[in-house]
Amino acid sequence: MGPLTTRRRVEFRDTDAAGIAHFSAFFFWMESVEHELLRAAGVAVVERQPDGSDVSWPRVSTGCDYESAVHFGDEIEVTAAVAAIGRTSVTYAFVFAHAGRPVARGRVVAVRCAMRPATPPEPVAIPADVRQRLEAFRSAG
Amino acid sequence: MGPLTTRRRVEFRDTDAAGIAHFSAFFFWMESVEHELLRAAGVAVVERQPDGSDVSWPRVSTGCDYESAVHFGDEIEVTAAVAAIGRTSVTYAFVFAHAGRPVARGRVVAVRCAMRPATPPEPVAIPADVRQRLEAFRSAG
Amino acid sequence: MGPLTTRRRVEFRDTDAAGIAHFSAFFFWMESVEHELLRAAGVAVVERQPDGSDVSWPRVSTGCDYESAVHFGDEIEVTAAVAAIGRTSVTYAFVFAHAGRPVARGRVVAVRCAMRPATPPEPVAIPADVRQRLEAFRSAG
Amino acid sequence: MGPLTTRRRVEFRDTDAAGIAHFSAFFFWMESVEHELLRAAGVAVVERQPDGSDVSWPRVSTGCDYESAVHFGDEIEVTAAVAAIGRTSVTYAFVFAHAGRPVARGRVVAVRCAMRPATPPEPVAIPADVRQRLEAFRSAG
Repeated sequence: MGPLTTRRRVEFRDTDAAGIAHFSAFFFWMESVEHELLRAAGVAVVERQPDGSDVSWPRVSTGCDYESAVHFGDEIEVTAAVAAIGRTSVTYAFVFAHAGRPVARGRVVAVRCAMRPATPPEPVAIPADVRQRLEAFRSAG
Repeated sequence: MGPLTTRRRVEFRDTDAAGIAHFSAFFFWMESVEHELLRAAGVAVVERQPDGSDVSWPRVSTGCDYESAVHFGDEIEVTAAVAAIGRTSVTYAFVFAHAGRPVARGRVVAVRCAMRPATPPEPVAIPADVRQRLEAFRSAG
Repeated sequence: MGPLTTRRRVEFRDTDAAGIAHFSAFFFWMESVEHELLRAAGVAVVERQPDGSDVSWPRVSTGCDYESAVHFGDEIEVTAAVAAIGRTSVTYAFVFAHAGRPVARGRVVAVRCAMRPATPPEPVAIPADVRQRLEAFRSAG
Repeated sequence: MGPLTTRRRVEFRDTDAAGIAHFSAFFFWMESVEHELLRAAGVAVVERQPDGSDVSWPRVSTGCDYESAVHFGDEIEVTAAVAAIGRTSVTYAFVFAHAGRPVARGRVVAVRCAMRPATPPEPVAIPADVRQRLEAFRSAG
């Protein structure tokens, strides 16, 4: 299958006084598109466990490099790929473009964790079927 | 004692492509200043109960009227008063000014509620001592 | 035609530590749906004028009443209607629902203004053709 | 002088449904503390030029690594240092801690640019006096 390609519109809330999308908006778009990819893969974003805990995907590292600006109302194209899968972690790579022009590149490392109230997230191994579903969104090459 | 007066700076995240503070920023400032008032009153924003539930103050109504704009870096003066206290609810009134110029007026109705997972918030009576602490921030007249 | 009905998904960025959509998210949704209504009406959200100024729609009053909570991932239904049109202002009424259950009601008063750098927004009369396009989204009755 | 150390409180708006500060909040704190450092250094965040353009500091790269979570109401300690100064760019390094416990590490690369309407930001050399003021916030070693 390969990477997921989707679109997001620059909302007014995403802009700043420099007249362009605020740099933080790209992190919100990455999270939103990561969730869209998980739904497309049939993997729960939050999965209630028999013991009452939730399994989810908190991030341990995020980053973004900016190449050009986008403005209110622009429809941007976002490509999201699974770049690596470790024992407990998934690395996503994002490419943002507008009208064929490169806009930004981002990356997110999320770790599958058991979430329980009042204790820190505890990394858990990614089950084989989840791994397989995510492999379908691998970047080429 | 009367109303609480405090200051907030317009951060870049609060601005939009019109070059001014986005209208939503006033709701964030109201929430932040409401919490500052509660701390000044010695009232917990979130209070763990013996039965494991939390008592907190979700809002049932919010509103804001805008008179003039503020810009990145402006230090604004916020006055927060308790306008009314009902059996379970508190109404706050906010006045925003910059350099003596009126900027906006807001209002929030918050309800004291028991919060339990997977059930809707349940309104609870405001205890006498909490009521007394809040009365100290009553608007004059 | 009557009101516009559309959908928004509760994103993770919209939630708070109470586990539900933060009250501020409704204001972002109102703004986003107002812009969707303007686009559907064929009215520019920002319109560059021959003299170099922009005509846009800053808000002078906003408010929201909350009836029940929505959670991460919920798809909510938003109905937006034009409730009143004055010489320079438009009042919008919003109804939020989830799975048939009422969630919130909001209102926004926006004023058509000429926006010029370093001067306050200046209200301008709504042209007849814009008024006619907006009338199509009038609430019934 | 060395790095700037300051404090920020986790506001409710910064939290998410996992009950902790949302990962995006660290980017807002970095921007806010970068501006506090510039003000402490006597360097304008936005500087109007004789030709009517603004000189400011858009970012070309940002990133954050997360080590532990912080919660609503926590007061976090933020240390901001100038890690490198190039011809047009400044690299900032941020360390977040709470009660002595490491929370996150972030980095921002900002470029001094002339900002003009309708044209992309144009990198400009950092003047000697600005460079000198920023050098005072160099990280040790």
